Amino acid sequence: MKVTEVTNTERGESIIRRCREIAAWTDVPGETTRTFLSPSMRGVHDLLRAWMEEAEMSVEVDAVGNLRGLYPALRPDAPRLVIGSHLDTIPNAGAFDGVLGVVLGIALVEELRGRRLPFAIEVVGFSEEEGVRFSKPFLGSMAFTGTLDAMLLKIKDVHDVSLGESILSFGLDPAELPAAKVSPRAFAYLEMHIEQGPLLESVSRPLGVVEAIVGQSRLFASFTGKANHAGTTPMRLRHDALAAAAEWIVAVERIASVRDGLVATVGNISALPGAGNVIAGDVAATLDLRHADDAVRSASLDKILLEAQQAADRRGVKFAWRETMDQDAVPMDESLTSLLECAMLAANVQPVRMMSGAGHDAMIVAAHLPSCMLFVRSPGGLSHHPAESVLAKDVAAALTTGMEFLKLLEARSTSTGHEA
Amino acid sequence: MKVTEVTNTERGESIIRRCREIAAWTDVPGETTRTFLSPSMRGVHDLLRAWMEEAEMSVEVDAVGNLRGLYPALRPDAPRLVIGSHLDTIPNAGAFDGVLGVVLGIALVEELRGRRLPFAIEVVGFSEEEGVRFSKPFLGSMAFTGTLDAMLLKIKDVHDVSLGESILSFGLDPAELPAAKVSPRAFAYLEMHIEQGPLLESVSRPLGVVEAIVGQSRLFASFTGKANHAGTTPMRLRHDALAAAAEWIVAVERIASVRDGLVATVGNISALPGAGNVIAGDVAATLDLRHADDAVRSASLDKILLEAQQAADRRGVKFAWRETMDQDAVPMDESLTSLLECAMLAANVQPVRMMSGAGHDAMIVAAHLPSCMLFVRSPGGLSHHPAESVLAKDVAAALTTGMEFLKLLEARSTSTGHEA
Repeated sequence: MKVTEVTNTERGESIIRRCREIAAWTDVPGETTRTFLSPSMRGVHDLLRAWMEEAEMSVEVDAVGNLRGLYPALRPDAPRLVIGSHLDTIPNAGAFDGVLGVVLGIALVEELRGRRLPFAIEVVGFSEEEGVRFSKPFLGSMAFTGTLDAMLLKIKDVHDVSLGESILSFGLDPAELPAAKVSPRAFAYLEMHIEQGPLLESVSRPLGVVEAIVGQSRLFASFTGKANHAGTTPMRLRHDALAAAAEWIVAVERIASVRDGLVATVGNISALPGAGNVIAGDVAATLDLRHADDAVRSASLDKILLEAQQAADRRGVKFAWRETMDQDAVPMDESLTSLLECAMLAANVQPVRMMSGAGHDAMIVAAHLPSCMLFVRSPGGLSHHPAESVLAKDVAAALTTGMEFLKLLEARSTSTGHEA
Repeated sequence: MKVTEVTNTERGESIIRRCREIAAWTDVPGETTRTFLSPSMRGVHDLLRAWMEEAEMSVEVDAVGNLRGLYPALRPDAPRLVIGSHLDTIPNAGAFDGVLGVVLGIALVEELRGRRLPFAIEVVGFSEEEGVRFSKPFLGSMAFTGTLDAMLLKIKDVHDVSLGESILSFGLDPAELPAAKVSPRAFAYLEMHIEQGPLLESVSRPLGVVEAIVGQSRLFASFTGKANHAGTTPMRLRHDALAAAAEWIVAVERIASVRDGLVATVGNISALPGAGNVIAGDVAATLDLRHADDAVRSASLDKILLEAQQAADRRGVKFAWRETMDQDAVPMDESLTSLLECAMLAANVQPVRMMSGAGHDAMIVAAHLPSCMLFVRSPGGLSHHPAESVLAKDVAAALTTGMEFLKLLEARSTSTGHEA
């Protein structure tokens, strides 16, 4: 690989074309909507299988519908690098969320042009990450890591089809699920994914290295005051639930704004009785709070709850809350992450370390394999939207970085005498 | 009348019993819901007619369904005092909103025990004030003041029955509407009404004298930011429409709290897309702003709009608004209001001057007749609710005040040599 290839966008353009070709496979004509093991997923498998086989990979679909292409190493019992992301989409999606990482994985193997490494490369297209069909995300990576509980086979989609039945309908066998577990020879996982946020664009960088996938707290907050006539109730005699909630929302924004890496969002709110001439007696609102350091998240949540209590107390309003999610942060493997950074430098891309504010398959895989993630800039920060895009030059940079990453892994394998 | 009767609650209790008897006439069994010219209104007319006739009043129902009882003066061409309030209710109402003023009017005539005054007394039970059936309030007092436009006869209720048809169905004739207009001999209007707010209770007073019915501004406000991922969008790169709206709601509360007599309410809000993990891109909210001084209201609205603009600007959010109501304040007649205050003093009740934050028939009548209003304390500030109540001692105080008011009018009529 020559560093000059970073500026060569042709390879990036061909990867983008492949992603758009995949996007044409949809459950819903006129948009890109592809849920777990839907008929359109078979078309995607056929496309990817052809590209993989052309790159000298052997291809299988495991029992949960993950597409798995293996590019063998020099030796049959060699360790294995896993490169993956997901093939399913949200409803009315763009063309790159998930898919880009799989197509990039294949492109890396293609770049080897048949040259064998001291480790095998398995490219995985996970069958399910978004959780659309069964309201349960990460089914693909859970089967891949052997953590898909057999009980889950009974969950049903909106058409009353169980997960187990959906697997059978696709021509797969749920009894084979244990065999979907990743080989014990696997030593590392790399996921390349669009950022889905505006950070890289805001600092004018094409790529980011993910340090951790942030932890999340989610809760429902309720403020209970007293509904009353907006005309006849003097301000000092009110118990306005919406005014209390509003003061809290402003505090949530302020608390998150002064702490690096913290994001806090009140995204939904409703006020009852909800008439323009009646003081709101009941307000319900959501909170979404994320940070890469669970201790920071926990301390911030305490502050936010205290502000809510104070805003309520000042108005004789009752505040209550119920936690709906408390998910720890998932750090990426520091050694692999550093290696990825070195690969970026070698590819002539200035590294940016960042957090992933959204969940990814790497979150599940990291509990079983040392994992790292590379983010590709999202123009306009846009994702989960038909207009989602990537720049060809950024994709080319990701490809070059990936090649440098393979070279560094190869070098490490040789120098340490370890298998990888 | 003896001042000691103020503490005699028996008369108050009998008035409350009558109100509860009326409340049993309902369109919806199990609650009190009585809309314009519904069958249950006929039952109310029959009850009131019997009480009125027993008090030597002649009774008519005018073409819009107002029940009108006339207690003649000493001379047939004497001036006429009008005492009234409304007989319709909101859905699932209490027993006193409106009705109390009519029952109190009859009780005043009863207290005269046949004694004739230099002026006649016309007690009016307005057929429509709440605007429930035709989404148009004050139909009764508009016909009474000759301001019910004939075009309005075409408006329809939810069952596609027009106002004109509803009048015919009740056995009345829309062609007779002009005759519903109050006699040119009328010289004053008194409305006694429950406060429907907590102010009198908060200062431990039974009665209030209304200086003015406040002016109202109502508007829809919209904040347009950018919906984005709650996890991947750093705080500094957000355009959070809900955070902007929240800062504004807090400002609305603050502005109203520091200005005497000003009330401002954001009673309804909605956020889109309305998902817990998505920054709100669009927020719509209502504003209800009231003050007795239109200049104060206008200046306060300017301040409130400026705060909204600033809260939006700080976040790169767009603010827009649309006015849905701009109704001037309606002052009560100062001379009558002072007379009512004197009557309260004579009745041994400490006067409280206050604003009416809600609209009343007096708002319509005041444009045609010098008008005044007496408020009766609302326990718990509760109104528009089945648990709406009044205290017997407060009703007794209102009755005594009313009698003193008649005496003062009588004295004024005699001393000035005017007809009243």
